[in-house]
Amino acid sequence: MGFFTKDIKSLNDLFMHGLQDLYYAENQIMKSLPAMIEKATNEQLRAGFEKHLAETEGQVHRLRQVFELLDTEPKGDKCPAIEGILKEGRDLMSEIGDEDVMNVGLVAAAQAVEHYEITRYGTLVAWATQLGRSDCASLLHKNLDEEKAADQKLTAIAEKSVNRKAA
Amino acid sequence: MGFFTKDIKSLNDLFMHGLQDLYYAENQIMKSLPAMIEKATNEQLRAGFEKHLAETEGQVHRLRQVFELLDTEPKGDKCPAIEGILKEGRDLMSEIGDEDVMNVGLVAAAQAVEHYEITRYGTLVAWATQLGRSDCASLLHKNLDEEKAADQKLTAIAEKSVNRKAA
Repeated sequence: MGFFTKDIKSLNDLFMHGLQDLYYAENQIMKSLPAMIEKATNEQLRAGFEKHLAETEGQVHRLRQVFELLDTEPKGDKCPAIEGILKEGRDLMSEIGDEDVMNVGLVAAAQAVEHYEITRYGTLVAWATQLGRSDCASLLHKNLDEEKAADQKLTAIAEKSVNRKAA
Repeated sequence: MGFFTKDIKSLNDLFMHGLQDLYYAENQIMKSLPAMIEKATNEQLRAGFEKHLAETEGQVHRLRQVFELLDTEPKGDKCPAIEGILKEGRDLMSEIGDEDVMNVGLVAAAQAVEHYEITRYGTLVAWATQLGRSDCASLLHKNLDEEKAADQKLTAIAEKSVNRKAA
């Protein structure tokens, strides 16, 4: 969609815009995870990030399936929100001068990403359902469930291990 | 904190950084809500935004109380994540050319903001608790609960009214 063109005139247009936004976001997240894996010195956290990288690849694949169901080519739309969230994470990493505190910061940065995805997938599932596209909603719901599980896993790692070690 | 200065060396430093980040974010959100209220033509949504503006003022006040408990001056730290999330919302608004679709887009934009706050308050509550500052954790938890309730209210407005009208 172009800027200030008022191109979005229907819920379907909005849904397509949201899909493209999230497709861009997932691809950016996939690119940013290797640096987070490298910085994580906590074993559980590192393993969690590695698992989530594989999961993210699967999520991108599901988004491609949604585009296919809608007879359109997968296309990303630059998403200032994920750019900002990832930049904030990178800035924070560059300011941390302690290994244990780094693990805590990595959890916080990753959970901000998860919550962005949770809100966007939640919205897209609702829109797809409203539009009568339960086939798309079902695929998007799988991604939503994975993001929620990843967020809960991060909370558990933080509470049981990472936060305690840094305190 | 300065860039690349490795100033964050303890969980306490990280907590202060997070507080400043969220203080900045809440103030930006407060500035952005009037434009969203103006664009909302759905009565329930408009009323919800108005209520949330008042709530946000209360949340900023609680953050100031947390700074006070920590014997520091309230100070914001520029937060690229909220800048990106709010920019994405403004961009989307500028692309929507239909009143009913605008209400749907406003809900999505507001829920992205709520989820950012939910993740950050959740993190700050955990850190305050780990640091033995239950006084700060308790105030932050009130803000967290309000953000979660606001998010649920938006989901209800979307499902019962806004999404249906745009479909």
